[in-house]
Amino acid sequence: MNQVFLQALSRQATPYTPVWLMRQAGRYLPEYRATRARAGSFLALAKTPELACEVTMQPLDRYPLLDAAILFSDILTIPDAMGLGLYFAEGEGPRFERRIESEADVAALPLPDMEADLGYVMDAVRLIRSTLNGRVPLIGFSGSPWTLACYMVEGGGSDDFRRVKTLMYKRPDLMLELLRRNAKAVAAYLNAQIQAGAQAVMIFDTWGGVLPDGLFQKFSLASMRWVHDALIRERSEAGVPTPVPSIVFTKGGGLWLEEIAAIGCDALGVDWTVNLGAARARVGNRVALQGNLDPMALMADPAQVQAQALKVLESFGIPQQGVGHVFNLGHGISQFTDPEMVTALLEAVRDYSTKQRAGSTRS
Amino acid sequence: MNQVFLQALSRQATPYTPVWLMRQAGRYLPEYRATRARAGSFLALAKTPELACEVTMQPLDRYPLLDAAILFSDILTIPDAMGLGLYFAEGEGPRFERRIESEADVAALPLPDMEADLGYVMDAVRLIRSTLNGRVPLIGFSGSPWTLACYMVEGGGSDDFRRVKTLMYKRPDLMLELLRRNAKAVAAYLNAQIQAGAQAVMIFDTWGGVLPDGLFQKFSLASMRWVHDALIRERSEAGVPTPVPSIVFTKGGGLWLEEIAAIGCDALGVDWTVNLGAARARVGNRVALQGNLDPMALMADPAQVQAQALKVLESFGIPQQGVGHVFNLGHGISQFTDPEMVTALLEAVRDYSTKQRAGSTRS
Repeated sequence: MNQVFLQALSRQATPYTPVWLMRQAGRYLPEYRATRARAGSFLALAKTPELACEVTMQPLDRYPLLDAAILFSDILTIPDAMGLGLYFAEGEGPRFERRIESEADVAALPLPDMEADLGYVMDAVRLIRSTLNGRVPLIGFSGSPWTLACYMVEGGGSDDFRRVKTLMYKRPDLMLELLRRNAKAVAAYLNAQIQAGAQAVMIFDTWGGVLPDGLFQKFSLASMRWVHDALIRERSEAGVPTPVPSIVFTKGGGLWLEEIAAIGCDALGVDWTVNLGAARARVGNRVALQGNLDPMALMADPAQVQAQALKVLESFGIPQQGVGHVFNLGHGISQFTDPEMVTALLEAVRDYSTKQRAGSTRS
Repeated sequence: MNQVFLQALSRQATPYTPVWLMRQAGRYLPEYRATRARAGSFLALAKTPELACEVTMQPLDRYPLLDAAILFSDILTIPDAMGLGLYFAEGEGPRFERRIESEADVAALPLPDMEADLGYVMDAVRLIRSTLNGRVPLIGFSGSPWTLACYMVEGGGSDDFRRVKTLMYKRPDLMLELLRRNAKAVAAYLNAQIQAGAQAVMIFDTWGGVLPDGLFQKFSLASMRWVHDALIRERSEAGVPTPVPSIVFTKGGGLWLEEIAAIGCDALGVDWTVNLGAARARVGNRVALQGNLDPMALMADPAQVQAQALKVLESFGIPQQGVGHVFNLGHGISQFTDPEMVTALLEAVRDYSTKQRAGSTRS
C-alpha cells in the first residue's frame, strides 16, 4: 500500500509530500455528476454504499497521484440518525425538519446505533476498503460536535449563527449537554468507521472559527477533546495493531493552533490564511500539518496553479523526520474547478516535493 | 468635547474605556427604521445628508454613554461614484449594474471628484459635525481598496469570491492596477471627509480575511498602505493642528496583526476570534486596539451581556499610558438586537473599566 499519507501524519520522513483534496469526489468531476444524476438525489448517493463507493473511487481512478481516499458521505449523517430529518431543498443547502430549541429537545436526542442507524456508512467504508484493495489509505470523517450543533440548532446553514449562539450565551449548560451528546455520537461514529476499515479519521470543525476566543476553547475544542479521549487509536490490520491517526480541521482556527494541537490529535488541517512555516514553528514538533492552498487558486492557468502550489510547499519547508506535511486545499474544491487543473496541481506537488528532499530546489 | 475616544486611539491614559459600536445607527433601532421608511430606500437615506445626519445622531441621543459617532453611509459609495451603478435589490445585498471584468474596464475607472460626485457624503460629514456640536468625535470611513474590488469584480456580495480571486490569480498585474485606482480614490475620499470635519477615519477591510497568507500582504495590505501614505494626518481645528487617527479593521485578520500595525495606522480593529491580551502583547506598544465582543453576545440576558463585556475588558487588561483600547463589537451590531441590551453593555463597559483603573477589580 501507498503509505506516504500515513507516514506524513505520524511525522516520519517521506519520499515526497503526500496529497489529497477535500471534496475530491465532487461536482467538479463529470463522472461524479453522472453518478449523482443516476442516484436521483445527493442523499440517495450518500446513503447507497455502492454509489458512495463509486464516487469515492472516481478521483483515484482519474488522478493516480492522489495519496489518500476519503469516504464519500454527508457531514450531517449523525443528526439525521438522531431523528432530526435531514433533507436538501432544491438549490439550497442542508435543512432539518426538526430544530433543537429546548432542554426537552436535547434530552430527547438518542445516541444512534452505528450499525442499525448508520449501517449504510459502515457498509460504504467496508466496500471502499475492499475496492481500494490497498491502493491508498481510506480516511473516515465526521463533523465536529460544535459544527453539528450549529446545523441542529439553526435547522440548516446560517450567515450569523444567531440561534446557536443565542443558545450558547443564554444556556451554556444546555449547549454543553448538547455537545456532550454530539461528542459521544461522533466518537462512536468514528470508532465504528475505524472498525469498518478507516485508516485515519478527520474531524471537520467547519464552524469552530465563528466562535469568540475563550468560547471556542470552552465549547468546540473541549468537545473535540472528549471525542479524542474516546477514540480508538489503533485498529488491528490482519492481526497487527495499526495506528489510526486523527486530523482536526478548524476552519478559521489559525489563532488557536497550539491549543488544538494539545487535544490528542495527530494532525491539524489549516486554511489558507495560515502561513505554514509559522504554523510549523508553532506546532510542528507535536502534530503534522495538512493544507493549505486556496481552492480558488485552481481557477488560474496551469503554470499559475503550479506556482501557487510551490509557494505552499516552500512555505512549509522541507519535511524531515519529526515534522509532517500533507498537501491539501484549505477548504473543499470548488464545483467550478477544471479537472485539468487538479492534474497540474498534483504533478507540481509530487515533482517539487521530491526535488525539495533531494536538495535540488532553492528552498 | 468628550475626548476619551481620541485619547485611547493615541494611546494616552483615559479615565475609562471608550466605546462605540459598529453599525450603531442601524436597523435594530426603531427610530432608524422609521427614518429609513420615510427615506423610501437605503440609498436615499445614505444620499440625503439631512437623513444621514438624523440616523447618525439617533444612537447618540438614545445612549449617552457612547463615546463616538460614525458617519452613516454605504461602504460602496466610491465604486458608485466611479459609475458602476450601485443598487439594492429588494431583500438582497448591494449589486452593481456593471462589473469590472477586463483591462478596459479597469482603465475606464475614473477618480471620482469628491465634491461633485461624493458631495452628499461631505455634506453629511459637515452637517453631523455641526449637529454634534462637540459632544463626541466623528469617525469617517471607507471600505478598503481590496474590499471595494471584491464588490466591483463580483458585481455584489459573494460566498466564494470566485470572480475576484480568479482575476487576482490570473491577472495579478491587473488586480494591482485596480487596487491602485481604488487606493487613490479611498485616500481622496478619506481626506475629503477629514477636511469636511471627520476627526478619525476607519478603513473597513471586510474581505481581507478571505485572502491567503502572502496574497493578503501583496494585495489588500499593500493597498491600505498606499492609502495611509496619502492620508492627511492632521486637520486644522480652529487654527490648531489636530491629529486625525486611523483605524484599520481586517475581519479575519488576527494572524496578521503585526503586519497591519506596520502600515502607518493608529489602531487595529479586531474581531472576536482574537484574544485581546495576546494581541496587546503582539502590537500594543505600536497601535491601539478596537474591539471585540461577538455581536451575538447581545442576544443573551443583561447579566450575561455584562459578563461577556467584562471578559473583553479583562482580556485586554488595564489600559495604561502607551496602550489604548476602544471597546467595540467584533462586527456590526445585528438587526435582531434588543436596544435594551446595548444599554446594559454600555453601562457595564463604563462601570467596569472605571473600576479597573481604580484598582478595585480583580484584574
